[in-house]
Amino acid sequence: MKKALFSILIYLFLQVPFLVFSQKITVNADRLHQHLMILSKYGMNDAGGSDRVAFSTHDLAARDYIKGLMKEAGLEVSVDFAGNIIGKRAGKNASLKAIAFGSHIDEVPNGGHYDGPVGSLGAIEVIQTLNEQKRMTDHPLEVIIFTNEEGGVIGSRALVGQLNEDALKVVSNAGISQGDGIRLLGGDPDRLSEIIRQPGDLAAFLELHIEQGANLYNEKMDIGVVEGIVAIEWWEFTFTGKANHAGTTPMNLRKDPMLPAAKFILAVNETIRASEGRQVGTVGKIAASPGAGNVIPGEVKLTLEIRDLSSEKIWSLFENLELQAEAFAKDYGVEVSVKHIEVASKPALADDSIRELIKESATALGLSTMSLPSGAGHDAQEMARIAPMGMIFIPSKDGVSHAPDEYSSKEEIANGANVLLKTILALDKKLN
Amino acid sequence: MKKALFSILIYLFLQVPFLVFSQKITVNADRLHQHLMILSKYGMNDAGGSDRVAFSTHDLAARDYIKGLMKEAGLEVSVDFAGNIIGKRAGKNASLKAIAFGSHIDEVPNGGHYDGPVGSLGAIEVIQTLNEQKRMTDHPLEVIIFTNEEGGVIGSRALVGQLNEDALKVVSNAGISQGDGIRLLGGDPDRLSEIIRQPGDLAAFLELHIEQGANLYNEKMDIGVVEGIVAIEWWEFTFTGKANHAGTTPMNLRKDPMLPAAKFILAVNETIRASEGRQVGTVGKIAASPGAGNVIPGEVKLTLEIRDLSSEKIWSLFENLELQAEAFAKDYGVEVSVKHIEVASKPALADDSIRELIKESATALGLSTMSLPSGAGHDAQEMARIAPMGMIFIPSKDGVSHAPDEYSSKEEIANGANVLLKTILALDKKLN
Repeated sequence: MKKALFSILIYLFLQVPFLVFSQKITVNADRLHQHLMILSKYGMNDAGGSDRVAFSTHDLAARDYIKGLMKEAGLEVSVDFAGNIIGKRAGKNASLKAIAFGSHIDEVPNGGHYDGPVGSLGAIEVIQTLNEQKRMTDHPLEVIIFTNEEGGVIGSRALVGQLNEDALKVVSNAGISQGDGIRLLGGDPDRLSEIIRQPGDLAAFLELHIEQGANLYNEKMDIGVVEGIVAIEWWEFTFTGKANHAGTTPMNLRKDPMLPAAKFILAVNETIRASEGRQVGTVGKIAASPGAGNVIPGEVKLTLEIRDLSSEKIWSLFENLELQAEAFAKDYGVEVSVKHIEVASKPALADDSIRELIKESATALGLSTMSLPSGAGHDAQEMARIAPMGMIFIPSKDGVSHAPDEYSSKEEIANGANVLLKTILALDKKLN
Repeated sequence: MKKALFSILIYLFLQVPFLVFSQKITVNADRLHQHLMILSKYGMNDAGGSDRVAFSTHDLAARDYIKGLMKEAGLEVSVDFAGNIIGKRAGKNASLKAIAFGSHIDEVPNGGHYDGPVGSLGAIEVIQTLNEQKRMTDHPLEVIIFTNEEGGVIGSRALVGQLNEDALKVVSNAGISQGDGIRLLGGDPDRLSEIIRQPGDLAAFLELHIEQGANLYNEKMDIGVVEGIVAIEWWEFTFTGKANHAGTTPMNLRKDPMLPAAKFILAVNETIRASEGRQVGTVGKIAASPGAGNVIPGEVKLTLEIRDLSSEKIWSLFENLELQAEAFAKDYGVEVSVKHIEVASKPALADDSIRELIKESATALGLSTMSLPSGAGHDAQEMARIAPMGMIFIPSKDGVSHAPDEYSSKEEIANGANVLLKTILALDKKLN
């Protein structure tokens, strides 16, 4: 009997945050959606897509619109040396580190209107809602709208000290270098060292984002609790046989690298799928050389990309596939060589306790949840280097992203912003 | 007893041509080889290959050398309106049609020194040998050195009325149009209709050539008796799935056209090999679109080429493969479409009785023979439209051709020229 009472007390205690906030504080779905529709007009092209690439005139105008919204929400707005727009709101306890959250508003060329804006405007909506509810948090809050996410998570890399001089010289989608682009935004690429955040400088970082995949959409789930952002590894496989006359070389005397390459493509699909988990493997590029219809190829080159939350698993799958490639090559009397291509993308795991809070917040709102990795890169993966990180996904219709028909509904967007709001409040209590 | 005597008489009768000519008339192997070495110098590049493409200054100079050799051999030399070099030798019976034979001396860029020259110089050597032996044939003889074989059997097509105005506008390897090239050789592209040979105008056409494949070389056979020149058909297969983010699209939700394309490549090899005969099938070109390592392709295009002596067999194999492609596409939820590419190349069968004479001539010389199709195109395929045709192959080392290391030995070349000589003499008697 005593034990049962104790259980009930524990249960009630765990329900406290829900009882206090769950049905009370929610964002204004219409206002949030209206802001999104207005932001969409900055750089909308004839195809209905967004040409708001970072550093373009559309990006500059949209940033002014965003700064205005942030000021309206009472935030203390500044632009750092990397061009990131930072909006600060004081907390009750000035000695606590800030809880930061945000996303980006730049898009890929002819992109959509949700990848970035949902998390950016959702963050501002959270502040507006807190203001309207006269709700002060213990921790200071910080909204960050990052510079040029689509061009290589430039703003977040600068913020965590990962943007070097070479990266600043790279020409971005607007046709100017990252360095010159940062200057256009009011930043100063020569002073990036002054804005670097160190581990411990922030209490946490949260990002709301569209899934950019079809897991939530297909499973009819409201909220994705992101396990982390996957690592990406790339290799180039070269199968080398002997180029020869396609008319005069009998079938049994050929050393045709196309054949082991074809077996390898099938093996990638089979091997990646045979293993438990959500890892993905892709052969996206292939070329035969000399590449004429009447010449047996001498060489076939193809790319292999594997993504997973675990680097160890990626390399184990690769080693398995490398062995298969060697066996296929041998079967057809050709050679195979493999080159690892450097793409600095390590896995960025979400913080376990933040994941738990996201899930609880969603559940308290009556929303269904699904745990899943993020197969795409985000600013959150950089921020995870210096702070406990959490990401909230909402469904993308048909899984489409980086295209004009990218879409999430008003309700789905509001769901995401509400989960962000609840998670921030829960985190504010928990970290206290 | 009577029967045995009859058999012996028949046997002796069949041996008559061998008893008369076999050990008596043979070409001068050293002279033939020396001519080949001299011709090789016209356009030899630093890599040791030949840059004697048709209409180049190398080609023009080499043609003068060839005309000189032909005149030395007593031929009545002229250049026709297509630029073909024609050398005539009268026969004992002026009412008979000429037996023609020859090849070409132009090469592919950075080509070898045997593809064409062996048959051209071999033909001239045959005439020189007949002169030295004071041997007159009943039929007139005609040596033809064809214009721009490597650029599309231009000279032989003109001779049989198959070269149209569009073909004359095509830019050849020397950088000028076929029409302008023909003018450089002393021809006149506006008067090609005046040189057309009609069926029946020649008694026969013979061509000596290197195999350009490894059948004879690998089987250690001296002489290839060509069954015919294969037909060639080309198709382009397009597998269309859905391009998608390689990170955010789970394996089971992909419509990846790379997978049925890979299955199709393997099926081409298996299906072509499973069928009896010497047909060949090749996928020489493949491209994935958009073609990035981090994007699941939306489309994969590849070429299919099938060659065989029988057009019917080619189409039957194609239909089998088309059905397989459709099944593979369906398995992976993608579409496939097929486009037939026009490459006017019908099969050209060798004349049965000439094949028999070639085989007998080789056997009489103590040379081993092998019947085989020509997988490559030749002037003889065009000449077969108007005359009974025969082709004699000699081995190519390692099957190499169209490359600097193309090679046949002095002895192999002399073997070929001797078989050509013997076949001409046998034909001269047979057709009388």
